[in-house]
Amino acid sequence: MEGELKPMDAEQLREYGHKMVDFIADYYKNIENFPVLSQVQPGYLRKLLPETAPTHSETLQDVLEDVQTKILPGVTHWQSPDYFAYFPSNSSVAGFLGEMLSAGINMVGFSWITSPAATELEMIVLDWLAKALKLPDEFLSTGQGGGVIQGTASEAVLVVILAARDKVLRRVGKDAISKLVVYCSDQTHSSLQKACQIGGIYPENFRVLKADPSRDYALSPDTLSEAVSHDMATGLIPFFFCATIGTTSSTAVDPLLELGKIAKVKSGESNSIWFHVDAAYAGSACICPEYRGYMNGVEEADSFNMNAHKWFLTNFDCSALWVKDRSALIQSLSTNPEYLKNKASQENLVVDYKDWQVPLGRRFRSLKLWMVLRLYGLEKLQAYIRNHIELAKLFEELVAQDKRFEIVTPRKFSLVCFRLLPPPSNEDYANKLNHDLLDSVNSTGKLFISHTLLSDRYILRFAVGAPLTEERHIVGAWKVLQDEAATLLSKC
Amino acid sequence: MEGELKPMDAEQLREYGHKMVDFIADYYKNIENFPVLSQVQPGYLRKLLPETAPTHSETLQDVLEDVQTKILPGVTHWQSPDYFAYFPSNSSVAGFLGEMLSAGINMVGFSWITSPAATELEMIVLDWLAKALKLPDEFLSTGQGGGVIQGTASEAVLVVILAARDKVLRRVGKDAISKLVVYCSDQTHSSLQKACQIGGIYPENFRVLKADPSRDYALSPDTLSEAVSHDMATGLIPFFFCATIGTTSSTAVDPLLELGKIAKVKSGESNSIWFHVDAAYAGSACICPEYRGYMNGVEEADSFNMNAHKWFLTNFDCSALWVKDRSALIQSLSTNPEYLKNKASQENLVVDYKDWQVPLGRRFRSLKLWMVLRLYGLEKLQAYIRNHIELAKLFEELVAQDKRFEIVTPRKFSLVCFRLLPPPSNEDYANKLNHDLLDSVNSTGKLFISHTLLSDRYILRFAVGAPLTEERHIVGAWKVLQDEAATLLSKC
Repeated sequence: MEGELKPMDAEQLREYGHKMVDFIADYYKNIENFPVLSQVQPGYLRKLLPETAPTHSETLQDVLEDVQTKILPGVTHWQSPDYFAYFPSNSSVAGFLGEMLSAGINMVGFSWITSPAATELEMIVLDWLAKALKLPDEFLSTGQGGGVIQGTASEAVLVVILAARDKVLRRVGKDAISKLVVYCSDQTHSSLQKACQIGGIYPENFRVLKADPSRDYALSPDTLSEAVSHDMATGLIPFFFCATIGTTSSTAVDPLLELGKIAKVKSGESNSIWFHVDAAYAGSACICPEYRGYMNGVEEADSFNMNAHKWFLTNFDCSALWVKDRSALIQSLSTNPEYLKNKASQENLVVDYKDWQVPLGRRFRSLKLWMVLRLYGLEKLQAYIRNHIELAKLFEELVAQDKRFEIVTPRKFSLVCFRLLPPPSNEDYANKLNHDLLDSVNSTGKLFISHTLLSDRYILRFAVGAPLTEERHIVGAWKVLQDEAATLLSKC
Repeated sequence: MEGELKPMDAEQLREYGHKMVDFIADYYKNIENFPVLSQVQPGYLRKLLPETAPTHSETLQDVLEDVQTKILPGVTHWQSPDYFAYFPSNSSVAGFLGEMLSAGINMVGFSWITSPAATELEMIVLDWLAKALKLPDEFLSTGQGGGVIQGTASEAVLVVILAARDKVLRRVGKDAISKLVVYCSDQTHSSLQKACQIGGIYPENFRVLKADPSRDYALSPDTLSEAVSHDMATGLIPFFFCATIGTTSSTAVDPLLELGKIAKVKSGESNSIWFHVDAAYAGSACICPEYRGYMNGVEEADSFNMNAHKWFLTNFDCSALWVKDRSALIQSLSTNPEYLKNKASQENLVVDYKDWQVPLGRRFRSLKLWMVLRLYGLEKLQAYIRNHIELAKLFEELVAQDKRFEIVTPRKFSLVCFRLLPPPSNEDYANKLNHDLLDSVNSTGKLFISHTLLSDRYILRFAVGAPLTEERHIVGAWKVLQDEAATLLSKC
């Protein structure tokens, strides 16, 4: 950019903004031509860029050329229709427009007064989404609870564990931190372990209960019940339990109703076990009546989380968290320095989301969720989810028809867990075989899948959920998997 | 949007993206016409929006009309040239383009493999920025340290306090958490207190030392020295100290060199006091040689933070944190579940930024910082900073010429702290008078300023730093302040 610096000139924004829109639209037009998983080697970019920032300004043309030739080769294309790894992370036109608008307004919404619309729209759209999920009314902002957009499910579980920790420590004294016990299953996401590390929960009090393979890796209520009883008998203080709807490894669904009742009964009148439900991935499916049953028992929960940025067309990041008792969050996370005081906050007329989260500043993220809900509407969003589940079903059928493979756990949503069977009487070789299959498939660049371990078996995960994925991509991916498997098996 | 859902159709993205660019460019064209501080009442938006999400899709036209008529009236316009509150939160064409591109690619960069370019570009641009700030080489990613983009300064100070906490607890045992002491001044940002709450530091061990009014509210080294000695004598364990370059209330600068030496000497060979420097706002100024002196002593620090999203034209959020010992961060924040394992990570060939931060997922935020540095270049960025400081100087001179006002602390950067003097022999009335002046000025909608308390005096803060602010806005703002002051004084 030549001449005087005009860093926010409206006409320059218009001119360059149009160029960037075209660049991004062209990216999506050609997205199938990229290797899905980036094939660069560690350290590739440092060789391509200068060692210091430029002294003088450069042109947008220069930068866009570098994006094309230096950055995009190092990108793993999560929006590619051939992306089936981890869980999806949806982009959409509506989500993208919402991000643009948020970046355009670029306000920092820590308190209501810093942009009332940001706080109020967030409360409203999270009430909308809560209603679409048929969450109990106690989670709505019109009562004692409410929703908040966190960056990620990690931050969601962290803030509720802090709220639960401080609630119990206020009762029993802060020296009792060494006695606080957290429960989850060995299928619970690692973000809970990290939240415990951050919150100072003693590692030996982080109970990872063995999920039940005969229940498709859901947690058995008896297991929880026994663990809680044992800990209480030895003088420890159970205070937090996390159940999952749609675990990361295999989309297992924990039985919320029974688990929640145990949490409530065991902790007695003081009701000190905070029950959190992590539906980061599968929560999106629960807007369809036929999947809402997986949420039965959520009325027992203290908090519920789903990531709109995963499978709900809302660009990253947008993790929706609801709590029944917002005061618990606020008591843990509020600060009230003089320089942020203002009439509306002091008079308790408003929500200040800074007190519901770890950071102070926050973006206007509700805009993109609002735009997704309005530009698509619930009916089409349900159709979107159902279509991916149909595509996953198709993939499952293709795998089932091939005797060289097996489906490892029954598919519940849009993830298929499967593996290549080793040659007869060579089960020890199975894990290496599937590891090699993963590597060879991902190295083709034609698709990207990921893996997990279930009962020590190395499993391939095929997660359908990218917005551009169609039947032809499923069929094509399966063909690549079959071809690479044949090559590997021929070498056995 | 009618017909079948095509959530990421390239041509729809192009068409709608162009419309959104025009909408945002028009917003900036007309930004001076809005009241800077939103004048809506609490709960205004719920009256304007439906109670549930729509079943059927709506049009972009509908949504943009609602943005114009329902959302924008509830926005406080941080990008307005008449915004002088808190600290600035810069938007720019380059930063906006970077956000667009990041939202367009929409990858989730928790591990190197999930998009190598995202991790590597972040390492490179933070090295660039470290060099522009003349940070010691130990903070570069080429050694044992390195930089990372956090969302906010709150997250930056949280992760370093966790790293410091766990480092000392590994040595002395985790039951010693009750003995760990944190030091800061009463001018340190409230995010440190929040980080301590989260990390389980005992509130009685959070030492808020009185800053010295005779040093313009910087912390006196003697004060720190005495506090540390006293705590050590009573068996407590000093482990963390935070100094600030440019405090929130008045941009005071703590004497890093002396404070850092105390931290080092007192803690002896074990070197267990982690020294963090918060330059969230004023760090940007330190790219100019004439302000770099404020950073002298940073070589004593373990970590350094500046917010590129404040005064460095990089859209929110982009908080740059550097550490000398990245392994301390990683030991506190890493998890390694099977489903995220991959060859590059397992072989320690790469940085996985998930282990440097609280969340797992992360956006491609380095793009916008890279684009700011390239599209503007360091020379123009320095000119940008200097221009704001000149404008603040102008405002300071205007205030100084008016006998009804006083400058409360000497201006260092682009913040002017001042107040309206009460009628003679009525000092008790001064705080209410300035509170009323703040209210009446902000109610005009013509500018937005904020306040603080210094030595129990209510002070007005005038922070220059919005990208569109010119001399005429300073002069106009001063005129409004004078007029409102005259009205108030006439009522005394």
